[in-house]
Amino acid sequence: MSRQLHLNLFIYPGGHHEAGWRYKGSDPHRTVDISNYQELARKAEAAKFDAVFFADGPALADNIRYASRFRLEPLTTIAALAAATSRIGLIATASTTYTEPYNLARLFASVDHISQGRAGWNIVTTGAAQAAQNFGLEAHPLHADRYGRAHEYLEVVTKLWDSWEDEALVIDPESGIFADDSRIHTIDHTGQHFSVKGPLNLPRSPQGRPVYVQAGSSEDGRHFAALYAEAIFTAHQTLASAQEFYADIKSRAQGVGRNPDHIKVLPGISPYIGSTTAEAQALHDEFNSLTQPAYSLDVLKRMTGLDLSGHDLDGPFPRHLIAPDPDRAEASRFKLVLDIVDREKPTIRQLMHRIAGARGHWVVVGTPEKIADEIQTWFEGGAADGFNVMPPWLHGGFDAFVEHVLPILRKRGLFRDEYSGRTLRDHFGLPRPENLFTARRNISAAE
Amino acid sequence: MSRQLHLNLFIYPGGHHEAGWRYKGSDPHRTVDISNYQELARKAEAAKFDAVFFADGPALADNIRYASRFRLEPLTTIAALAAATSRIGLIATASTTYTEPYNLARLFASVDHISQGRAGWNIVTTGAAQAAQNFGLEAHPLHADRYGRAHEYLEVVTKLWDSWEDEALVIDPESGIFADDSRIHTIDHTGQHFSVKGPLNLPRSPQGRPVYVQAGSSEDGRHFAALYAEAIFTAHQTLASAQEFYADIKSRAQGVGRNPDHIKVLPGISPYIGSTTAEAQALHDEFNSLTQPAYSLDVLKRMTGLDLSGHDLDGPFPRHLIAPDPDRAEASRFKLVLDIVDREKPTIRQLMHRIAGARGHWVVVGTPEKIADEIQTWFEGGAADGFNVMPPWLHGGFDAFVEHVLPILRKRGLFRDEYSGRTLRDHFGLPRPENLFTARRNISAAE
Repeated sequence: MSRQLHLNLFIYPGGHHEAGWRYKGSDPHRTVDISNYQELARKAEAAKFDAVFFADGPALADNIRYASRFRLEPLTTIAALAAATSRIGLIATASTTYTEPYNLARLFASVDHISQGRAGWNIVTTGAAQAAQNFGLEAHPLHADRYGRAHEYLEVVTKLWDSWEDEALVIDPESGIFADDSRIHTIDHTGQHFSVKGPLNLPRSPQGRPVYVQAGSSEDGRHFAALYAEAIFTAHQTLASAQEFYADIKSRAQGVGRNPDHIKVLPGISPYIGSTTAEAQALHDEFNSLTQPAYSLDVLKRMTGLDLSGHDLDGPFPRHLIAPDPDRAEASRFKLVLDIVDREKPTIRQLMHRIAGARGHWVVVGTPEKIADEIQTWFEGGAADGFNVMPPWLHGGFDAFVEHVLPILRKRGLFRDEYSGRTLRDHFGLPRPENLFTARRNISAAE
Repeated sequence: MSRQLHLNLFIYPGGHHEAGWRYKGSDPHRTVDISNYQELARKAEAAKFDAVFFADGPALADNIRYASRFRLEPLTTIAALAAATSRIGLIATASTTYTEPYNLARLFASVDHISQGRAGWNIVTTGAAQAAQNFGLEAHPLHADRYGRAHEYLEVVTKLWDSWEDEALVIDPESGIFADDSRIHTIDHTGQHFSVKGPLNLPRSPQGRPVYVQAGSSEDGRHFAALYAEAIFTAHQTLASAQEFYADIKSRAQGVGRNPDHIKVLPGISPYIGSTTAEAQALHDEFNSLTQPAYSLDVLKRMTGLDLSGHDLDGPFPRHLIAPDPDRAEASRFKLVLDIVDREKPTIRQLMHRIAGARGHWVVVGTPEKIADEIQTWFEGGAADGFNVMPPWLHGGFDAFVEHVLPILRKRGLFRDEYSGRTLRDHFGLPRPENLFTARRNISAAE
């Protein structure tokens, strides 16, 4: 079979368009109703998607007066989705800056057991400065510090997930032996940020470890991804930018001795679908007409540091006013906004609308054929191994993709008709990682 | 209707008897299989139990060579159980010493939304010294320090759960107003242990707050319970001990201005049921014959600090060897073991068997009538508002209770035939707490 697309449904409450909750087809009253997400996960499973994906941050977003910018906690959400589905992968975001590694390791191991091998961890260092104040910190840790901690964090949780070898459980009622404790290991980690003895208090999970997903595209983020990521969620506005990123990541992975096929690059795509180009454009325009400047300007302010209230929205975006900020300079979303400004020279309102669609992700407006063509071009053009599909509103924005775009992709042989495996690693074509302690034992035995 | 019993099913992997996993009716291979717990929760719901209950500690127990002493992480577990049930309460244990309050508040608020108002939090300060080393601490915090932190912790999470008033969500697509931000509050907490700004990033949950459950019976524990607990899980070996505790807790509650009916006292009971007394005794003997000294002695060592390996198991328990330990002296389980020793003057083996049944909880061996009589005596004798039922093995130990004891309790008018409400607060007869910020607003308005 030819190389196949990987598709995740990225579920954002109210939809990815910032005014998606106001669209007539939305049901914003179901924002914290788990049955809403169970239905979506079942739809995505029926469509044979690889996974559903949830973002997260441990603080309330600014300006929720105008938008549904909060969600159920993702790990408890995917545990509840595991009970309502049987095949689809379940990816939850969690922060290396604001969660104790022992707690995080348990939560994901538990969900991997509960889902029988369908858990993925989207690793973030948490960019929102508000989070620090919910965790007793005066100031938000700087970008580089967060990544320093994240590297050590990955080392700790990886060792915890491997602290039980696969053969550790004996469960022999006759002899009275429940577990072979010679195959359960303390990890005795002491480092700059963490001191964790272990072992984890759970047997190794079906996938060995959850799938490591990562989303940062900064220099630090790329370096981190090359070392650890098995799937990367990334934001690109142009084919060229995605191609550069794709080639860079695969070559970095090779550079650290990894198989580049074992890092799936999945840009975000937010599709506005119409039976004609004009219809799709009208749909997109309707969404933009629902945006609210008070909200959109706040989003821009958080991305760029620039307060534009009081400016003429139909005047040019004042790029020269952006103050240099060494921490922000490395943030991928900041660079992406500057790229749009430099390339398109938009008015403030035009930039607001560009960002409103999917917070800086790729927005494609057109017929189902046009959407499928773009996906195929990126997929075959060295820009993507698949996509995080970001419906502008829910459920209709996803239903339209499944009903109209997916059959075209299938007809072209680009997407599966049926699952071939049971775990998220199976869907992504990723190996189950060898246990570190078993490997060490095998090396000792061979010496 | 007359006063009704409250019954929780306390689910311990492998059953509560330490050798329960070895019993012929057990299925120890399902220890980390969520469908095992979903079936149990459905059975408990069909029996109209108030709740299922999960213990927890963030470290691997010693000596798992001989027993199934680990479990799926409780919050993800009850999220998955919420999806498989619709009425039964879901109580998970979580630690105030080893979980960040913002994270814990989110997890429980999320589960309360997911379950539509069925979440309970069993608040523990974590007695296991091993936990400290999984969280970067050299030594385990002392008993009094842990409670000091717990008091402030309760203050923080309570404010977080109330940080959205009930009317904060507006969701008006027409005007574009999603939330009334004048009804969403920072909590601006700064104290000795925590500094948390808030607000929580979730709307107030169906129950307002999860039900506060608590299990410590030390002096610190009783004081804490009187202030915060809405249900207390407690261990007593005798009616007199349970009566003393019950009266003390209710009077302490009254002393701090609370309605004593809003604290439900629920001792543990582990029933060994036979159609005759002799049959029940034979069942209990069979379980004791499955215990393993290497394991049981380790349990005793953890409870008393005394290493008895090498001693004659059929000689008297050497009470005089127990070293004074100011921290341990306050631990409720330590005092309970000493009480058994002083009252019953057991041999080491007899004490091992006393503890093996349910780690120090009340073990009742007898016919269904005898079990029902004991329950009724405690319930009507000022010793209990209900019980945490602790089956020696799963599922059979629970099935026997439901099949044989429950009909007797129902015939006597002591236990519900049907749920009368939908939330755990409804089942327990607890009020939905008034929101702190709404109360403050109402007071200001009245002035």
